[in-house]
Amino acid sequence: MLKIVLDCYGGDKSPAVNLDGALLALERFPDLSLVLTGDETELKKGLEGRTFDSSRIEIVHAPEVIGVDEKPTDAIRLKKESSMMKGVRLLREDDSLSGLVSIGSTGALVAAAQLRIGRLKNVIRPTFCPIMPKIPGGIVGVCDSGANVDISADMLQQFAIMGSIYLESVYQVKNPRVGLLNIGVEEEKGDQLRKEAYKLLSETPNINFAGNMEARELLAGDFDLVVCDGFSGNVLVKSAEGTALQMMKLIKSKIYEKTLYKLGAGLMKPMFKELKDFMNYQNYGGSVVLGARKVVVKGHGSSEGTAICKCIEQARQMQVSGISERIEAELPEYKKVIS
Amino acid sequence: MLKIVLDCYGGDKSPAVNLDGALLALERFPDLSLVLTGDETELKKGLEGRTFDSSRIEIVHAPEVIGVDEKPTDAIRLKKESSMMKGVRLLREDDSLSGLVSIGSTGALVAAAQLRIGRLKNVIRPTFCPIMPKIPGGIVGVCDSGANVDISADMLQQFAIMGSIYLESVYQVKNPRVGLLNIGVEEEKGDQLRKEAYKLLSETPNINFAGNMEARELLAGDFDLVVCDGFSGNVLVKSAEGTALQMMKLIKSKIYEKTLYKLGAGLMKPMFKELKDFMNYQNYGGSVVLGARKVVVKGHGSSEGTAICKCIEQARQMQVSGISERIEAELPEYKKVIS
Repeated sequence: MLKIVLDCYGGDKSPAVNLDGALLALERFPDLSLVLTGDETELKKGLEGRTFDSSRIEIVHAPEVIGVDEKPTDAIRLKKESSMMKGVRLLREDDSLSGLVSIGSTGALVAAAQLRIGRLKNVIRPTFCPIMPKIPGGIVGVCDSGANVDISADMLQQFAIMGSIYLESVYQVKNPRVGLLNIGVEEEKGDQLRKEAYKLLSETPNINFAGNMEARELLAGDFDLVVCDGFSGNVLVKSAEGTALQMMKLIKSKIYEKTLYKLGAGLMKPMFKELKDFMNYQNYGGSVVLGARKVVVKGHGSSEGTAICKCIEQARQMQVSGISERIEAELPEYKKVIS
Repeated sequence: MLKIVLDCYGGDKSPAVNLDGALLALERFPDLSLVLTGDETELKKGLEGRTFDSSRIEIVHAPEVIGVDEKPTDAIRLKKESSMMKGVRLLREDDSLSGLVSIGSTGALVAAAQLRIGRLKNVIRPTFCPIMPKIPGGIVGVCDSGANVDISADMLQQFAIMGSIYLESVYQVKNPRVGLLNIGVEEEKGDQLRKEAYKLLSETPNINFAGNMEARELLAGDFDLVVCDGFSGNVLVKSAEGTALQMMKLIKSKIYEKTLYKLGAGLMKPMFKELKDFMNYQNYGGSVVLGARKVVVKGHGSSEGTAICKCIEQARQMQVSGISERIEAELPEYKKVIS
């Protein structure tokens, strides 16, 4: 039996959607059981009258909720009784638990994963890796996307190894093409860090390093994994998300300008629906923390039940595929130099 | 008479489009004269049989061309006889010349502007500033977008001042709202540099600092100027450009999937045309180097004549509006600390 913790609060429509996701996942994976954290009375009420195997669900009471605007380090220090931090504590202390899924504050979850869960052997710092759809099909992962703003070439090498293992294990991407985010494709581009990283990645045997990548290539399909510092990775992902969202808005507003356009858009409705589904990150699973001692998956705050079920599936797949063992086996030994 | 140098090579359709742009600009601005650099025979041939005031055009022979793939520092050192470097040399040495427009290699042009043209008083480093369209209307500038990857809070403050003056002088944006690119909106977000810059920008009297900005807000309309290091600025702009381009491609390919869609798209043709024009950066002018002793404007490599004319207009407007004098007057005195 595989046991995963589900933080039932912190999303736009929590806890209703979290419970939906939990029941969907239980139905889908007979080997799964779940620990739900959150307000016990509310969660019990939310489950009333629904059909599920009660032996596979456990509720752990946690009365507080971490808001999206709270400062992450304060939240993990002060909100010990929150659904998220209770989940983190359970995950850390209970060996029978293999992962945690949350749709709450990204900052708090990533900080908690880094500071409370501990790291796998030889991992310098865990990394936060979202997944995006590529226009010609398939997905692209971005390591790191905001967890680590101060970075070294060694860390970028580790992100490349961990990200490649993740894409192979969970998304069946064979020999993922790794790109180093840079401001030009030539080897000598970028600052000292990028030059060092380029050299190190070129010499790393167990990855498929494909050279520097410019930001405009993110969705074009040539790369499966982007490695970068957390600052520029965050900018990369959010700029793409924001642009896609704003373009859809623009198209929508333009359609309403003329009757002819409305008519045309009517004929193209299934296409626009497809486009919307395609751009909807919920369909690709959550973002994961790689390199932490246990699996941590972060779903989007506006997730519906199906998206949360997808995140649980992801956490399950990470455990089943033995990703942590592979990371420990494949990372080069790291001896911290005391400076 | 205002005299501007036009580098006539380095673009996808050079020199034909450069000559088109030159003649359009001469027609449009009676106070303008141009110095064209490039292969004299070719340029003369390209002008044959066309109507223009020959007293306002001068051709300076430059037989070489800098390719887009050449390493910028090598190019500016070795290709002294290129149309771009000849233009840069003329600009530096001839006081009657007020600006240079080029659609050639961005890297070479920015490096040449930084290393050969010199800086205005108190400028630490010139910055490279492209302009993008905002979805609700208007434009947003990004300072810096690749010229400076190693950066200090002082430099970000200067980018904010120079960028604000530029937007006011050339685009008539009143009191531009300045955002500091960061990985969250809260004051304490980001690395040490961002925290220092936040404080410094808050204390800068002659700008309208509106706080931290996340990358997803770039096109949303809330900010008129983004200040950032050149690495993340480059990622910000290219990720947005790439996403817009890929989405248009996706829509186009989907339209061809079904007859019904083709029919619908037919009705919406003017809308798609509008959308394409809207996303076409050529319509917004080139990117400029701010803080150099003379005006430098970089147009897109795939520019047509009208876009090049727009770049010449921009260079002219920068000169006419006295942007350099304002920058010198408004930048705080900078004393370099020898470390």
